[in-house]
Amino acid sequence: MNFINLITKKKNKGVLTKDEIDYIIDSIGTAPDYQYSALLMAICLNGMNKEETVNLTYSMLHSGSIMDLSGINGLKVDKHSTGGVADTTTMILAPLTASLGLPVVKMSGRGLGFTGGTVDKFESIPGFKLDMPMEQAVKQVNDISLVIMSQTKNLCPADGYLYKLRDVTGTVESIPLIASSIMSKKLASGTDGIVLDVKCGNGAFMKNKEDAISLAKTMIEIGESLGKKVSAIISDMSQPLGNNIGNTIEVIEALEVLKGNLKGDLYDVSLTLGSDMLVIGGIAEDTDTARKMLEENIANHKGLEKFRELISYQGGNPDVIDDYSLLKEPLYKKEIFLDSGNVKHLNAELLGRIACALGAGRTTHDMPVDSSAGIILNYRVGDSYDSSLPFAVLQTDKEDVLMEAERIFKNAVTLTEENVEKTNPIIMHI
Amino acid sequence: MNFINLITKKKNKGVLTKDEIDYIIDSIGTAPDYQYSALLMAICLNGMNKEETVNLTYSMLHSGSIMDLSGINGLKVDKHSTGGVADTTTMILAPLTASLGLPVVKMSGRGLGFTGGTVDKFESIPGFKLDMPMEQAVKQVNDISLVIMSQTKNLCPADGYLYKLRDVTGTVESIPLIASSIMSKKLASGTDGIVLDVKCGNGAFMKNKEDAISLAKTMIEIGESLGKKVSAIISDMSQPLGNNIGNTIEVIEALEVLKGNLKGDLYDVSLTLGSDMLVIGGIAEDTDTARKMLEENIANHKGLEKFRELISYQGGNPDVIDDYSLLKEPLYKKEIFLDSGNVKHLNAELLGRIACALGAGRTTHDMPVDSSAGIILNYRVGDSYDSSLPFAVLQTDKEDVLMEAERIFKNAVTLTEENVEKTNPIIMHI
Repeated sequence: MNFINLITKKKNKGVLTKDEIDYIIDSIGTAPDYQYSALLMAICLNGMNKEETVNLTYSMLHSGSIMDLSGINGLKVDKHSTGGVADTTTMILAPLTASLGLPVVKMSGRGLGFTGGTVDKFESIPGFKLDMPMEQAVKQVNDISLVIMSQTKNLCPADGYLYKLRDVTGTVESIPLIASSIMSKKLASGTDGIVLDVKCGNGAFMKNKEDAISLAKTMIEIGESLGKKVSAIISDMSQPLGNNIGNTIEVIEALEVLKGNLKGDLYDVSLTLGSDMLVIGGIAEDTDTARKMLEENIANHKGLEKFRELISYQGGNPDVIDDYSLLKEPLYKKEIFLDSGNVKHLNAELLGRIACALGAGRTTHDMPVDSSAGIILNYRVGDSYDSSLPFAVLQTDKEDVLMEAERIFKNAVTLTEENVEKTNPIIMHI
Repeated sequence: MNFINLITKKKNKGVLTKDEIDYIIDSIGTAPDYQYSALLMAICLNGMNKEETVNLTYSMLHSGSIMDLSGINGLKVDKHSTGGVADTTTMILAPLTASLGLPVVKMSGRGLGFTGGTVDKFESIPGFKLDMPMEQAVKQVNDISLVIMSQTKNLCPADGYLYKLRDVTGTVESIPLIASSIMSKKLASGTDGIVLDVKCGNGAFMKNKEDAISLAKTMIEIGESLGKKVSAIISDMSQPLGNNIGNTIEVIEALEVLKGNLKGDLYDVSLTLGSDMLVIGGIAEDTDTARKMLEENIANHKGLEKFRELISYQGGNPDVIDDYSLLKEPLYKKEIFLDSGNVKHLNAELLGRIACALGAGRTTHDMPVDSSAGIILNYRVGDSYDSSLPFAVLQTDKEDVLMEAERIFKNAVTLTEENVEKTNPIIMHI
């Protein structure tokens, strides 16, 4: 086999065979970067059919170690979101579904750019550790049904290579490449089922509904072709999912949901995804039953107590649950006042970028984050706002960025005199 | 400016501005190969409009030194062929047009793969040298109207870089990339006008007529946009242009044309291109007049004598013109006999590859060639062949390749009992 011929085949809209795709993935490290980037661009522009995408996923997931979760009793179900702003669903649904007996092994990543990361959020709980040997994770799940871990380094090294190259060659946007990248990592983590949350809107990678649906369907096809149970929702990311954008403040928001004090979009999306997890995991017959079980475990605080157990097991201070002042406080808090009006639009991407600039996120992989930095929004799309009250609070340790952050914040909010309907956070359930 | 944004722009079918194209070319050596190959693939698949192609040519032609031919009196006209098999037109039209007063500075390259190169052909004349300082070349043209040179090394280094990368990334086939590559080198050689011979057929890069026409028109547009006079023909390369495929044997065939002993396709194409050169160079009013002038200078041997003068000036032995035995002889000559029939097809690419295997060509840039190796065809498409006579002669110094060459040769020739029409070597004059 010859790499140039394979590039040419895809350039001419050919279909790559399983052997050819294996050859491409096996050649990582020997074939030069410039051949991969040419091939990736040809894939971006000429696409891949279902079989090619499945074969690419399979080949990448076998490029490194595959996690062995066979020591865990019961069907393991994972959840994956394509990344958004103020999306703290994992912190809600993981303890909640675990409290109903679903074994949850959640592998998470750090935030990058305007999207937050679950690892950063958990690390904002004093003492909480996400790195541990696999045997310990397996034991913990058998003990308390739940573990939250950083992603293992040797999972899908081929995906790691290609993802890094795509990032610097303008070849990120491609449904087969995005789908196979996500699914190879999820499948290598040894799960039996996957619940997908494909974000759609200006604060997500998928800007329009058609692309989001296509990505979701492609990932379902991949999963089912490889013998896994997969479901997906398309959820709205044209405004932030929750009201808090940051790390400690998202922990607080998740705890408020688990305490039963907070409903709304974040609550709805968490319970929809959680219901799918319970059905796929065989804990509930159908999503209606599942949702009732979840609502019950919010009301009876069993989800909250599971979170407490999780914090204790992973080295954190569980007292934060009852005393938020144990979380880091920012040096500066700035209330933002706007002219009165009805909230027409909240630009999720721009708000994510402002939170990142305030210190909540990072723009390169090795930057530290400020756990208390971020934005607390007091209003959502469809709400009526009175200028006498603060619209939002900006939190940071960096006084010098506050003025600029406030200026840009005003561009991220659109207020109008007309009535505005509230939006539904769940666009579609597939 | 940011390279990734430019790749993304072209990926999304955007039009690159002049500044953006200049940035791309200026970044060669600093931006990584993998970004260039991704961009090249995006250009292959999404194309470039006329303005982008002109700007790319302009930027590449200014990436190195531009030859100064201002010391030469009169309009300089160059000729370029896209490369074929048994195409020795340069050896015929260069001395012929020079004998009519056209100043001819012909920069030539070596052969690669199945296509021959003018440099190799001239070097098969004992003593003939093609490397010389520019001042000497200018003096020679003012003295005898004609010089044949190897291509200068610092001409269009940007094209050199991109061409090498395209070769290993499946991005060779692209009309704007091919057109800008050819035209940047031709324009950097300081010529006033260019006559193009775009080959079409299985022995050429352009396999079909539509692509060949599109390439020719693109090159004419580039040339005219940059203030040059350009004409083009599309010529047939489904069979070899001449009867001899090799170096010394192509010299002999060219000399036979110049002596007036040989007509046919090679003669026709040479005189058509030569006529265009005389018209563009202002030596003749129109192509009919030009053709008569060329025919006259074959009949009166002025073209032949110009060739003699050229050989003397460039260190070669001019006696080869009258005594072909002064050229290298092969160790082995093998006559090939086939079953009788009418010649329906001669596979130019395959014949070129056989000649290359016999020693006439090279498969990597630094291989030496055997000047006497090659194939002499005694028949062309449309001829009637009798099995009692040799169809062809294979020449080589390598006895071990002869048997395999003979076997493959038989696959390159199609004979039929039906009558076959002769083909016209000139498909179109643009």
